[in-house]
This record gives sequence, structure tokens and C-alpha cells, in this order.
Amino acid sequence: MKIAVINEISAADRNADILRALEGRGHEILNLGNTGGNDSPALLYTHTGLMSALLLHLHAVDFVVGGCGTGIGYLNSVMQYPGVFCAHLLTPLDAFLFARINAGNCISLALNQGYGWAGDVNLRLIFDALFTPETGTGYPPHRAEPQRQGRETLAQISCATHRPMAKILPALPAGMSHVALSYPRFRPLLEDAIEAVSDPALSTAIKSALKTLP
Amino acid sequence: MKIAVINEISAADRNADILRALEGRGHEILNLGNTGGNDSPALLYTHTGLMSALLLHLHAVDFVVGGCGTGIGYLNSVMQYPGVFCAHLLTPLDAFLFARINAGNCISLALNQGYGWAGDVNLRLIFDALFTPETGTGYPPHRAEPQRQGRETLAQISCATHRPMAKILPALPAGMSHVALSYPRFRPLLEDAIEAVSDPALSTAIKSALKTLP
Amino acid sequence: MKIAVINEISAADRNADILRALEGRGHEILNLGNTGGNDSPALLYTHTGLMSALLLHLHAVDFVVGGCGTGIGYLNSVMQYPGVFCAHLLTPLDAFLFARINAGNCISLALNQGYGWAGDVNLRLIFDALFTPETGTGYPPHRAEPQRQGRETLAQISCATHRPMAKILPALPAGMSHVALSYPRFRPLLEDAIEAVSDPALSTAIKSALKTLP
Amino acid sequence: MKIAVINEISAADRNADILRALEGRGHEILNLGNTGGNDSPALLYTHTGLMSALLLHLHAVDFVVGGCGTGIGYLNSVMQYPGVFCAHLLTPLDAFLFARINAGNCISLALNQGYGWAGDVNLRLIFDALFTPETGTGYPPHRAEPQRQGRETLAQISCATHRPMAKILPALPAGMSHVALSYPRFRPLLEDAIEAVSDPALSTAIKSALKTLP
Repeated sequence: MKIAVINEISAADRNADILRALEGRGHEILNLGNTGGNDSPALLYTHTGLMSALLLHLHAVDFVVGGCGTGIGYLNSVMQYPGVFCAHLLTPLDAFLFARINAGNCISLALNQGYGWAGDVNLRLIFDALFTPETGTGYPPHRAEPQRQGRETLAQISCATHRPMAKILPALPAGMSHVALSYPRFRPLLEDAIEAVSDPALSTAIKSALKTLP
Repeated sequence: MKIAVINEISAADRNADILRALEGRGHEILNLGNTGGNDSPALLYTHTGLMSALLLHLHAVDFVVGGCGTGIGYLNSVMQYPGVFCAHLLTPLDAFLFARINAGNCISLALNQGYGWAGDVNLRLIFDALFTPETGTGYPPHRAEPQRQGRETLAQISCATHRPMAKILPALPAGMSHVALSYPRFRPLLEDAIEAVSDPALSTAIKSALKTLP
Repeated sequence: MKIAVINEISAADRNADILRALEGRGHEILNLGNTGGNDSPALLYTHTGLMSALLLHLHAVDFVVGGCGTGIGYLNSVMQYPGVFCAHLLTPLDAFLFARINAGNCISLALNQGYGWAGDVNLRLIFDALFTPETGTGYPPHRAEPQRQGRETLAQISCATHRPMAKILPALPAGMSHVALSYPRFRPLLEDAIEAVSDPALSTAIKSALKTLP
Repeated sequence: MKIAVINEISAADRNADILRALEGRGHEILNLGNTGGNDSPALLYTHTGLMSALLLHLHAVDFVVGGCGTGIGYLNSVMQYPGVFCAHLLTPLDAFLFARINAGNCISLALNQGYGWAGDVNLRLIFDALFTPETGTGYPPHRAEPQRQGRETLAQISCATHRPMAKILPALPAGMSHVALSYPRFRPLLEDAIEAVSDPALSTAIKSALKTLP
């Protein structure tokens, strides 16, 4: 699985902990956001939310690990976009249930609130429970079918309520999207991905957006 | 403040706990979802998410208290709609921070997972911290201004990424929206609210939707 | 390893969850307390604390899994006795750290407070982290030696502050100790254990106590 | 109420947070342990446990707020002594229940694990729930009487299982007790308290111990 890790600035000092906790699982990890508290430009949760959604829509990654100080800002930001299904995970049990019941493509971690000593160990235990072949199998198992239907309805709702990404991109506040799209660790990936993308409207929209960057 | 409480079926037995925990705060409480495990029709998180969003868009309430077994299903459902800013709250500290930093209009409670003995007391402690005159004042206080800007940008993003509610309503899976709109405790409120609503397109869309109900 | 599970009455309905969560680990499990909410006689945390301490002193088991509604009552009860080192474990991280740092012989689980849906899964995740070959290796690893010294000093303190078990037994409130010692699932084990025990004073004290039972 | 705050070295940097969170409640606060990570001598949980127990036995304070990195080390240390009833408190709900059900005289806080951003706010919310006129009134209220009996039996057990403090003191590992008794913020209080203490054996034991200090 290809997993993007995207930190905003307030919790960028946890970036190394996240990377270490993801090691040794056989996943390809793309580290695309801030990697330390002094990184420049500083990304806010509004930026990391857009970056995350674009990566998912471009099929550049299968899963995004994000977060912020409490986890709630990034959650609200990334959930503004279509096709994003995200949990706020604090414990391994949260991860166990999210994998089986919701089987989403994104998580938001609380990286300052409640993140103390051995917070890195907790991340590892969370990822142990999250990345499982049991994804989408339901919990408890006999509820698998209604839970699958719930996810399907949710995906339909997401299509109905959102504009397509190709229309979203030019409508976003330009100051915000410029920072996100031009972020040095992110931009090359975006440029590669648009060549391969199967949605020509989105490809065109991203190309247009890239042209307007300073 | 007018607060809607909307439970889906899996956690409907917690409805009485929520109502009691909201008592004595001077708020007007509208109890619009399932109120017990045997309620019929049974509402799912997809239904309660739509109901919540409509209430906020119609200005029928100022705030929605929802949830589900883990809190993640309802969170993902209600966050599909424009103008909804929602937290997953497990502790009083979560509530304290959400009020000050995110100042959203919706919360999603975990009403089965981790909800054991004295869960009702925890709800009361959460509401003590959540409903505060400090809402939106920032935490820590010197971060008030960037946090306010974050909320403003988020609201602009929500407009850019979503269709307007008037267009969303007819595009939703009909089976789902029928259950939500025709729910007996909810429908009368909806019918009253559309008379008063300032958005004529939304009013028309709801009237059309109501006409198609069985 | 031989592990005793000892539930008091208020959380006896969790007993089956604990047993299942302990399965498949290669440990011998002795289930010695209440096993359901209607069990008679009902054991209180004062009883289960004494039973736990006796089992450890008789070397009848290596480890005791106990608890109560919040975990705090049993913790305070079992910690009254010498040679008992007990944690209050709520999450897998708690278990991970307790194993490495404190390496105690007893845990107290919160079996009503916060014990909701999937509480049984959380128990399993806790035991996954608790029963590890890393027990006593320190966390972080470079702190192994001072942490080992801390445990050693603590064991010396426990000897200095407590009477020996042989003197404790006759000094306990008789009404309390009678219920504990005569509990049907526990008494046969006690009678077997005193034959094998290497501490003749304790053996004599238990025999005397058993004689006074109704 | 007179409340002692006693930090060991690993979490001494939280000392200021604890003091601030205790402000404005009308309690007299005695700050007797390490107050910063560079304090010398460094106190370990074995030291702070003894100091806490002595203060309670001398009636020098009514309540002790202690803790360590995870809360489990100090808990195990202070619980070695007679007459100490201590909880591991992580959330306001824990505090609410401990006050009503267990009504102990000591708490152990987790001051590194899980102690992140806004941990100071969590302390304040915990103390809000802990220091209440409802102490000992039972939860739920109809369980007040059996819970009171539980506390009474526990106090009797504590007497039966422990040596008296006057005998404990000379039996403790001397290296450990010397550090505790001679700690500069603590020793003057101890010297004052022994003049007033109603237990002449304990007074004598402390005087003897003080004489042996380097």
C-alpha cells in the first residue's frame, strides 16, 4: 500500500515518530508535509487537507496519515473534500474498529493533545491495529453486510454533496491552494501524478492551477 | 441556544442520558432522532447526518449533538455536507479545546465504544466544558487570531467544495433521504422551518423532496 | 505462566470477556472469582484483593488479573498486601509500559467505567502488550538499570512496611476473610497450595484460618 | 484543606502546572518535592511515596497530589504504607468517581505518558471534579452505604497488613529514607510536624531517623 504522511507545522516535530512507527510493514511511505517545527513554508491544516484529498483523487496514494494538535482541525479540513473517509484515532481500539467498520482512506492523529512520553509507542500500536487484512470485514463480524452498505451509501452521499475535484480546485481560496500546491515536497509528486491520472478534467484543473503559482 | 439531539438506532438507548446531561443549561433542546433501541423506523448514521445538516442550514438549530457507536460513522456522514464543523469528543478536555479552537456547530459522541458505567456523568462533564462563553476565543489565548483565520478559511473551503444544499437534496440516494425526511419527530420541524427559511432555493428543494415522500 | 483471573461481583459479567481475551497465549488460566452477576456468594474488592495476595504468596500463580467497576477499589485492596505490584491498565500503551518499567505481578482493570462495546477487544489488545518477553527490560531501554533498581527498592520497602502474610491473616476482619477463603472456586486451590508451600508459618496460618470457617 | 504536592524528578517540570491548576480553590498548598527537572537532589518515586505517607500520618496535610511518568510507579510506592488510599487519575470522570466512591487521601497523576499540550487544562478539570463537597457520598447515590462499608473494611485491612509507621521507618532501606527525610523542602515541615504529632512512637522514630541523617 502507498501511504502518504502529511504533517502541518504545529505537530511537525512528531513527523519522525510517525515515520518510525510506520516502518517495517512493507508499505511505501511518502513523506510530503512539514518534517520539523522550523520547516518553511509552514503548512496549516487547511493546506494539508487539500494535499491529502488531491493525493487520494489522483490515486497517488492509497491512504493518508494526517493530523494536527488535537486531530480535529485536520479532520474537518480533509473531510471537506469528496471521497475522503477519515477517523480521529487515539487508541489501538479506535484503529481496530475503524479498519473493520469504516474502512476509510485517511486518519487524523492528535499529535500534541495527549501526546506525551511514549506517544511514539502508541502510534506503533495504533498502526498495528489499523493496517490489517481484516479491513472492511465488519465488527462484530455478523454486522459486516449492513456496515458495507453504510460505507456504500456514504460514498454515494459524498458524490452527491460535493463538486468534482476539477471544479473544486479553481474555486478554493487562492492564497490557501497556492501554498499547498507549491509545497516543495508535494509539487513534484503532483506533477508526476497528473500525467498518469485517468480523470482529464482534474488533470487540466491541476495544470491550470500549477500555472498560476508564483 | 437551540440544540438538536439526533441519535441513530445503534446508540438510541443513550438518548435519555444525553437529554439529562443537557438539562439545566438554559438551552432549548430538540430531540429529533431515535429515542430507544426499539424505535421504528431505525435511523442510520447516514440519515442522522442529513437531518443534522438540514437543521443547521435551515437555522432551525444552532448546534447538533449526534453520534453513533464509535462516533466515527456519524462524523463522516454529517461532515459530507457544507457548513458543518464537527468534533469527535471523548473527554471534557476535547470539549474545552473544540469550543475555543474550532468553535464548530456539531459534535459526534462515541455512545457504545468506551461508554460504560457513569458514561452519563462523562457526558455532563463534556457539556460543562463545551457550552462556554469562551467559544471561539482561541487556545492558548494568544493563538486566537490565527485560529479564527483557520475557521474562516475552512468555511470558504466548505463553500468551494460542496454543492449548495438545494442541489444536494435531489441528488442524494432517494432511499436514504426518504427515511430521514419522513422521520416522524423530524418532519414537522422541517415543514415549519421551510416557511421561515431565507434561502428560497433550499425551501423549494425541501418542498419537492417532501412531495415525493411515500 | 499461571495466571489467576479473579472478578468481584460488580464486574463479574466481564469474566467471560477476560477469559476469551487470555486464550491462545499458552498460559494456564485459573478462574477463581465470580463468573457472573448472579454468582453467590458475591465477592467484593476486599475479598478479591486478599485472594489475589494469597495466591501470589503461595506461588500458586505467577500473575493475577483483577479489577472492579473503576479499577481503583481492587487496586487499593490488593495493594494492601506485601509483595503485590499492581497497575491500573486502561489501554495497550499502559500495558506496554507497565510490563517494561514496573514488571509487576498484578493488574486492575476498569470493567464498568469506560467498558463499552468492543471492551473485550480492548482487553485482548491490552493482554497482547502486557504478556511480552520484554517484561522488565525497561523503557526506554537505556533506563533499564535505574528502573530495575526502583523495582528492587520497592520490593524492600514492601517487606519493611508490611507484616508477613502469616501474621496478616489472623489479623484481618474475620467476616471479610471468611468469605474470601471459603469461596468455592478458591478454597480447593488454597488447600492444595498450602501442602506445597515453602513458608511453614503461612501454611500454618492458612490451616488455622480454614479451621475457623463455618 | 491542606494539600501537599510532591513531584519526583522525572515529571518535575509539571510541578508548576499542578500548582496553577490547584489555585483559587481556597486550599493551602504545600509544595514539597522536586520543582524542576534540574532540581537536586533528584527524588524518585520511592522517596516521594515515603514523604507522602509520613505527611498523612503526621496529619501535616489532608491530601497528597503525587505522580510520576505513568502514575504507576508512585502509586505502587505510596500504597506500600498503611492508611494511604490512592487513585490513578487520568480524566475528570476518574476524579468524579474516586471522590464519591473511594474518597481516598492521595492521587497519582500520569505526568509524562499522555501528558501533552493542554495537559495543564486537564489537570484543572480533574481537580474541579476531585475536590468536591460530594466526597464520600457514593456513586450512584443509592450505593453510598455499601461503598462506605467498603472503605471502612479497607481501612481495617490496611491496619492489619501493615506495621505501624513508627516501626516501618527504621526498617526502610536507609539510603532511600535518608534522601526523602533530608530533602530541603520537606525536612523543616517534618521537624515542625513531629512536635505536634499525637503518636509519640512515630515522633520518636522520626527524631531517631533525623539524627542519623548525614
